[in-house]
Amino acid sequence: MELGVIGLGRMGRIVVDRSLDAGHDVVAFDLDAEATAAAAEAGATPADSVSDLADRLGEERRIWLMVPAGDAVDATLDELEPHLDAEDVVVDGGNSHFEDSVRRAESCPAAYLDCGTSGGPASAEAGFSLMVGGPAWAYEELTPVFDAVATGPAGHDRMGEAGSGHYVKMVHNGVEYALMQAYGEGFELLHEGRYDLDLEAVARTWNNGAVIRSWLLELCEEAFREEGSDLGDVADRIEGGSTGTWTVQEALEQEVPLPLIYQALAERFSSRGDGRFSRRLANRLRYGFGRHEVQRE
Amino acid sequence: MELGVIGLGRMGRIVVDRSLDAGHDVVAFDLDAEATAAAAEAGATPADSVSDLADRLGEERRIWLMVPAGDAVDATLDELEPHLDAEDVVVDGGNSHFEDSVRRAESCPAAYLDCGTSGGPASAEAGFSLMVGGPAWAYEELTPVFDAVATGPAGHDRMGEAGSGHYVKMVHNGVEYALMQAYGEGFELLHEGRYDLDLEAVARTWNNGAVIRSWLLELCEEAFREEGSDLGDVADRIEGGSTGTWTVQEALEQEVPLPLIYQALAERFSSRGDGRFSRRLANRLRYGFGRHEVQRE
Amino acid sequence: MELGVIGLGRMGRIVVDRSLDAGHDVVAFDLDAEATAAAAEAGATPADSVSDLADRLGEERRIWLMVPAGDAVDATLDELEPHLDAEDVVVDGGNSHFEDSVRRAESCPAAYLDCGTSGGPASAEAGFSLMVGGPAWAYEELTPVFDAVATGPAGHDRMGEAGSGHYVKMVHNGVEYALMQAYGEGFELLHEGRYDLDLEAVARTWNNGAVIRSWLLELCEEAFREEGSDLGDVADRIEGGSTGTWTVQEALEQEVPLPLIYQALAERFSSRGDGRFSRRLANRLRYGFGRHEVQRE
Amino acid sequence: MELGVIGLGRMGRIVVDRSLDAGHDVVAFDLDAEATAAAAEAGATPADSVSDLADRLGEERRIWLMVPAGDAVDATLDELEPHLDAEDVVVDGGNSHFEDSVRRAESCPAAYLDCGTSGGPASAEAGFSLMVGGPAWAYEELTPVFDAVATGPAGHDRMGEAGSGHYVKMVHNGVEYALMQAYGEGFELLHEGRYDLDLEAVARTWNNGAVIRSWLLELCEEAFREEGSDLGDVADRIEGGSTGTWTVQEALEQEVPLPLIYQALAERFSSRGDGRFSRRLANRLRYGFGRHEVQRE
Repeated sequence: MELGVIGLGRMGRIVVDRSLDAGHDVVAFDLDAEATAAAAEAGATPADSVSDLADRLGEERRIWLMVPAGDAVDATLDELEPHLDAEDVVVDGGNSHFEDSVRRAESCPAAYLDCGTSGGPASAEAGFSLMVGGPAWAYEELTPVFDAVATGPAGHDRMGEAGSGHYVKMVHNGVEYALMQAYGEGFELLHEGRYDLDLEAVARTWNNGAVIRSWLLELCEEAFREEGSDLGDVADRIEGGSTGTWTVQEALEQEVPLPLIYQALAERFSSRGDGRFSRRLANRLRYGFGRHEVQRE
Repeated sequence: MELGVIGLGRMGRIVVDRSLDAGHDVVAFDLDAEATAAAAEAGATPADSVSDLADRLGEERRIWLMVPAGDAVDATLDELEPHLDAEDVVVDGGNSHFEDSVRRAESCPAAYLDCGTSGGPASAEAGFSLMVGGPAWAYEELTPVFDAVATGPAGHDRMGEAGSGHYVKMVHNGVEYALMQAYGEGFELLHEGRYDLDLEAVARTWNNGAVIRSWLLELCEEAFREEGSDLGDVADRIEGGSTGTWTVQEALEQEVPLPLIYQALAERFSSRGDGRFSRRLANRLRYGFGRHEVQRE
Repeated sequence: MELGVIGLGRMGRIVVDRSLDAGHDVVAFDLDAEATAAAAEAGATPADSVSDLADRLGEERRIWLMVPAGDAVDATLDELEPHLDAEDVVVDGGNSHFEDSVRRAESCPAAYLDCGTSGGPASAEAGFSLMVGGPAWAYEELTPVFDAVATGPAGHDRMGEAGSGHYVKMVHNGVEYALMQAYGEGFELLHEGRYDLDLEAVARTWNNGAVIRSWLLELCEEAFREEGSDLGDVADRIEGGSTGTWTVQEALEQEVPLPLIYQALAERFSSRGDGRFSRRLANRLRYGFGRHEVQRE
Repeated sequence: MELGVIGLGRMGRIVVDRSLDAGHDVVAFDLDAEATAAAAEAGATPADSVSDLADRLGEERRIWLMVPAGDAVDATLDELEPHLDAEDVVVDGGNSHFEDSVRRAESCPAAYLDCGTSGGPASAEAGFSLMVGGPAWAYEELTPVFDAVATGPAGHDRMGEAGSGHYVKMVHNGVEYALMQAYGEGFELLHEGRYDLDLEAVARTWNNGAVIRSWLLELCEEAFREEGSDLGDVADRIEGGSTGTWTVQEALEQEVPLPLIYQALAERFSSRGDGRFSRRLANRLRYGFGRHEVQRE
């Protein structure tokens, strides 16, 4: 099968390489000519532009976008759309908001698949988990590519209609925040607690047979191995947060309570500030009612 | 009525002064002779020691302890007990754990009233709120003093048996933590949010007629008046926490969920650390699965 | 001063009555003719329609809208706007979203004041707390009316530019949710805990001098007096939630953590469902890893 | 190596079977004679009593207790101790509180290993994760058995001194609660949200390559396969909670904030009540300040 891939960053490049490895033909394009050249070296046919990529594909175009969520997707689609018709299929493998995907699916002349992609750079070898939304025929049409890019047939599935792939991925990420914070709390108590523990050994022991074993816990094990049980100079500052924010926003609309996921997101916000104003006020109020000494900076 | 008061710190002194103002006779003692002398100047009869205080009181001794919770209460009771019999009444007005109060009530030769005391130094003029546990006859016996020390007859009540006064006070303090944090969150959003607001004016406007008006909100108003809308150099560090910890511990035993009170307590713990280990781990994990840059100190 | 009031529900009627009591002239209109007639009986000049109300006001029209937030405000403004010019002032005293108020302020031919109103029906006697956003001159112009409708001069203030009044009111309500839940947790522990307590007596004692005294706590006292310490047949179901949802949404945009306010909102959502799916899954998972018996309905 | 096993429930039996499979000799005893007989059928030497088991072991006794945490451990140790000396080793493989383990280690005449055991019945084939506390020599001495009972050498490790094994297991369980609730929240949003999803398919797709893949997520997949995407008649009621309660209690002592783990525990408490008193009060308060209709049962 022939696949066009637009966006050759770390993730897009994995799509290219795994597709090539599975015997598919790939036409590749990135705004960065070096990235395009590198893909060509790996066996892809390079394209000079989005239009050129569209032209190089045959009648039934299958095009995978792996560009940053947001304006870049719309800009790429603007360039692509003159070349597309109803028999073509576009896959958005980025972290787009599901409502954007619904909107794009409605306006795109081609069939549009929103594809939540999880696994990160480590998936170069193992393959991704792909959560796909959109028309069933298009999903089936792309199945050979999904088989290659995912961990295999079990690593991808059609969740439902347009937007459902990115919806499920959004929730996946909300859960991810909470899982990280839950492990973090456990290790925090072990670190501050009564015993002087080797946290890498704890994580390794847990990863071998314990109920809470997981890939994230393997990453904890790796982190403690590389940074030490006190995490060295790793800062108390967590970047990111858009998909978690979307998850909470959607849950507010659906009136679904997500206390753990919310708390995990709130910890990110807290970590990025200079101190909680709410706590500074509480400190000051304790003087107000009890004449407790005010802590000052 | 004649009242012995042991412990003449800020709170004990209010007990002395309000009792004297109401026409009661007071015998006063503090380990700090200057504090005893100051009470004498205000009209109390000074005592040299706990024994001396007991001796100076007539047949039916009514003695109010206002000493720090913990060992100081037991030490004082050890000195007092040889002088006490079943017709005497001891009031513990401090922040003792209710289980200690139950234990002391059982072993004390006198009737024992555990008296949760709220209002702080500001109650010098307005009077305290007194939550009293212990025998009904003793509570009634002390009512003239409670009327004087509290805001009046409505400012004190017998909650129930031994320990119930300190139990209700413990829960009061747990609620207090959560209220402070709730106001703090609101002001934090106003401070960080879209408008440049005068937070003293906000608090004052709310205190005049709004649903959330309260004494704590009056203290917020005062805090913003004295420190400014950005709270100046007030630090993000909240000391204290024992009564809140007791509240959560008791709720764990009773299997009662207290998510807001717990969170308010957790904010205190967080404010006193050097950064959350849990968040440092989450920061590091984001590199693990997504090669996101690790934030380092 | 002459004031037009549109919307004569419980809250609008208080605006009418307090304005009349302060000696202002009021022209009143409600879609419900009976409500208009009742206001006329109280001393207002009745109007037949929004247009009629505008016509009956002199050159400089001051008009207070007290209609349900949302479409009703826009519909009323549509009718009013042909009659308005730049010297007129419109006050929106309802619970509008601050972004709607910014939009309306931009498009309204008159000066537009967004006025957060707190205190509820109980304010008929005591007066409201009014948080006002919009042009300073318009706020000053309306001050005599605000003095009358609020608890007095301290009960209203100009928060800042357009939208700031409703912004501050939104946050007020978020705090309100958390305060209610915080008191609720305390009383829940007292209710489930070790002592058989008279919760009305607890609330009354606290309201007289304790740090956590407040108007909401007075309402708790009243609730226990009227329903009993076990709250009788009062259901575990909390309606409402839009202003709390807005508060959390805004905090997500500002990246401000609000764990207590969020949790209070989440409790509302939980109270309205048939059971938490998350907990049903946890129940089932305990069988998965430990063969613990699954609880079934 | 020769091992005595006391307690032949589901977990003890796995210890027996995996030890036998690895070529060790096992002497087995359970208060339930049928359980002892079944172990004998599997190849173990049956014992009639704790004393008999001790007698049947050679000079250097290695004895694994797999009895319910609490009094049963102490009762068994009382029977065992007359037979033990300093060269013997006792392993407590149950869910004992770490402070009990410290106490027992101090009073036991033999070396005492506290061994947190995770994995549940499913570990019959794969082996357990074993977190061991106590003297290094005893841990090394038992290593051949640990190799057999755990997933292998990586599935067990010595955490540190007495109590550390059960300490780490306690924290493991606290994390486990939070992980279950985090997945639960995600699936709750998917279940209540915009798309009609096959949750087994979601879980399966996630388990193949996604960041949040884990053994608990495999159990989610199994649960949805067996119960359906709406979990059928699985009730909103989560039993258990002692290890989670211990985790929070220890964190209170260490002043470590655990908001997610606390919340997960609180959800268990909530699930077992008849409705939250706190929410009933909030419902009633909305009438108090806003005359909102009270929801009644």
